[in-house]
Amino acid sequence: MATRMQNVKPSFIREILKVTQDPTVISFAGGLPSPDLFAVEEMSRATAKVLRQDGRSALQYSTTPGYPPLREWIAAYCLRRYGLHLDVDQILITSGSQQGLDLIGKVFVNPYDPVVIEQPGYLGAIQALGMQEARIYSVPLLEDGLDLDFLKTILDGDRIKLLYTIPNFQNPSGLTYSLSSRQRLADLIRDRDLVVVEDDPYGLLRYEDEDLPCLAGLLPDKVLLLGSFSKVVAPGLRLGWICGPAEVIEKLVIAKQAADLHTGTLVQRVLAQYLADNDLDTHVATLCQVYGQRRNLMLDAMGRFLPPEVTYTRPKGGMFLWAGLPAGVSSLSLFELAIEQKVAFVPGTPFYVDGGGESNLRLNFSNASESDIETGIARLGAAMRELLER
Amino acid sequence: MATRMQNVKPSFIREILKVTQDPTVISFAGGLPSPDLFAVEEMSRATAKVLRQDGRSALQYSTTPGYPPLREWIAAYCLRRYGLHLDVDQILITSGSQQGLDLIGKVFVNPYDPVVIEQPGYLGAIQALGMQEARIYSVPLLEDGLDLDFLKTILDGDRIKLLYTIPNFQNPSGLTYSLSSRQRLADLIRDRDLVVVEDDPYGLLRYEDEDLPCLAGLLPDKVLLLGSFSKVVAPGLRLGWICGPAEVIEKLVIAKQAADLHTGTLVQRVLAQYLADNDLDTHVATLCQVYGQRRNLMLDAMGRFLPPEVTYTRPKGGMFLWAGLPAGVSSLSLFELAIEQKVAFVPGTPFYVDGGGESNLRLNFSNASESDIETGIARLGAAMRELLER
Repeated sequence: MATRMQNVKPSFIREILKVTQDPTVISFAGGLPSPDLFAVEEMSRATAKVLRQDGRSALQYSTTPGYPPLREWIAAYCLRRYGLHLDVDQILITSGSQQGLDLIGKVFVNPYDPVVIEQPGYLGAIQALGMQEARIYSVPLLEDGLDLDFLKTILDGDRIKLLYTIPNFQNPSGLTYSLSSRQRLADLIRDRDLVVVEDDPYGLLRYEDEDLPCLAGLLPDKVLLLGSFSKVVAPGLRLGWICGPAEVIEKLVIAKQAADLHTGTLVQRVLAQYLADNDLDTHVATLCQVYGQRRNLMLDAMGRFLPPEVTYTRPKGGMFLWAGLPAGVSSLSLFELAIEQKVAFVPGTPFYVDGGGESNLRLNFSNASESDIETGIARLGAAMRELLER
Repeated sequence: MATRMQNVKPSFIREILKVTQDPTVISFAGGLPSPDLFAVEEMSRATAKVLRQDGRSALQYSTTPGYPPLREWIAAYCLRRYGLHLDVDQILITSGSQQGLDLIGKVFVNPYDPVVIEQPGYLGAIQALGMQEARIYSVPLLEDGLDLDFLKTILDGDRIKLLYTIPNFQNPSGLTYSLSSRQRLADLIRDRDLVVVEDDPYGLLRYEDEDLPCLAGLLPDKVLLLGSFSKVVAPGLRLGWICGPAEVIEKLVIAKQAADLHTGTLVQRVLAQYLADNDLDTHVATLCQVYGQRRNLMLDAMGRFLPPEVTYTRPKGGMFLWAGLPAGVSSLSLFELAIEQKVAFVPGTPFYVDGGGESNLRLNFSNASESDIETGIARLGAAMRELLER
């Protein structure tokens, strides 16, 4: 086996998902959008239309960068949402944004190259960079963004190749970089030679306050911005994109060709049809209303049911919040008690590359009904009390 | 950029496809199945059914190894077609079999590891192994299989990690390993420590003679067998699979998770539904009748229109044949003349990793109408005569 396989463990979350197959367990462990909000009817109509109007092309091989009308839609979206002016050749369609990470790792990272991620960090990024045998530094995530003093020390001390960030409603913490944190981060990086990967799968799912500028706008030519349709349309399509400088996209296209030739033609066509025939903003507004309400309910239930020593973030969007038990109390031990109480979450350690997170837990609020949130948090509170009283 | 990017060039074939966008050019360059044979109606019905009956699950995230009923179908297929007894956990669904190559490369190949491919060899394998910075040896492909003396010398002289083969109707040559060649290859490899990748995308497209045993059957525990729905159902779905020893599949699943989490849920469900509601064998019989007829027509036209000095293979199946110009005559020069005559093919050099193929060309016969085959080969013959008379 290749040495890179020593760096990559099966995702702990995916292991946990097996435990939570039990339908009597209320799970806050996954990172799933709520399937009852999927636009099944609209997707059916889009699929029927594509196959009726142009079925042969939709089932045939297609070009590696992706279906041009879909890339045009994304260019228009990036202008509207981020104020970014992109040509279509600055956009590559990927098989979900996880593939974006894989391709970026392939194009930029040699074994032992130093890279920086957030702490706690996104598991998929840890896995994808691990596959390239990157040396991963983690920079603590504070309430309003990265610990920039910490980051500066690392940038000054090593030739960092790549920085991976989720500035909006980060996974797992739910935290969002403030405007000033984004600006200072951009200032710190502007004259350095590294690639910034700005992952924005949750950005549209904002439940309060205004959108903030993306790093790609603050640092033209340095940022690869990853987008995804998984959280706002449907993850089962596996459709995301990378946008960035055309000469980098060209390299990513070569890596994509070697990885899987191209993203599925049919699903790209269907999504383009769905986006042409439906207003995504209206759909997103519905998602924000439901998920925002679930977040409120979870925060409210946590206030009522959790022991007062437990801390947690109050995310302004996204799908997750991040809780902390008192120092020295293990979230893995809590997990065992919680499973007995029929409630699940993800313990914090997998989100740390070199230790830490032992007292943390990630809770998902997007994919649980209102009554399950109430009941599940009550169970979790009971499990916490049991653990704290030991 | 990472050093691996120096090993991988954009596929010459995909570059050529741009030239052949001109609708007045008759192209034998691509490797496309014929879209007029796609089961568009049946796929429409399968899609509508899946979305109607279980749309929410079909649009949701799903497990990394793939949709269980589809893996069960593949297990039954492998038993029927190859005589292989496989458990479902020996099967991983991939985003086309190109992704199988990417994942196998990741799991087994360290930079500078020596691997063996056929000469001429499949471009996608050259790209995927190039991405892992493998040292690629090529072993000449003879009329009935690999040059086994040549292979033995290489196996005795270096610690070969992996051997990549397409025993049925190879791309680009159209050649098929004979029974005795398969057996002798298996004997040569049986006591050595290497992985054999047996790629069988074209195996069902046989137009004469009987199926031959697969290497996976002759070398249990050593072979990873790649399958694809691209040539017999539809490439635009991007669906293929890897089967092999469960402990290897487990590692490939980890690599898959880091690469793109899982293959699209919707397309897997749709394909499983299509396979449940339709008889693939009947569809394949139609494909074989049409493609076999196109092969016959192309061989017949080549006999009539090409200069007698030109040699070519007579494939028993698949989608390609391989021609040779007299020594010293360049197929790249022919390509230029042929494009003027409005006919395209793929020159031989990209199929060679370290020189060679300068006088060869690959011709695809599956995706041209009968009249285009006649006209196109006539044009090609004229271009050849013009070149030979220079």
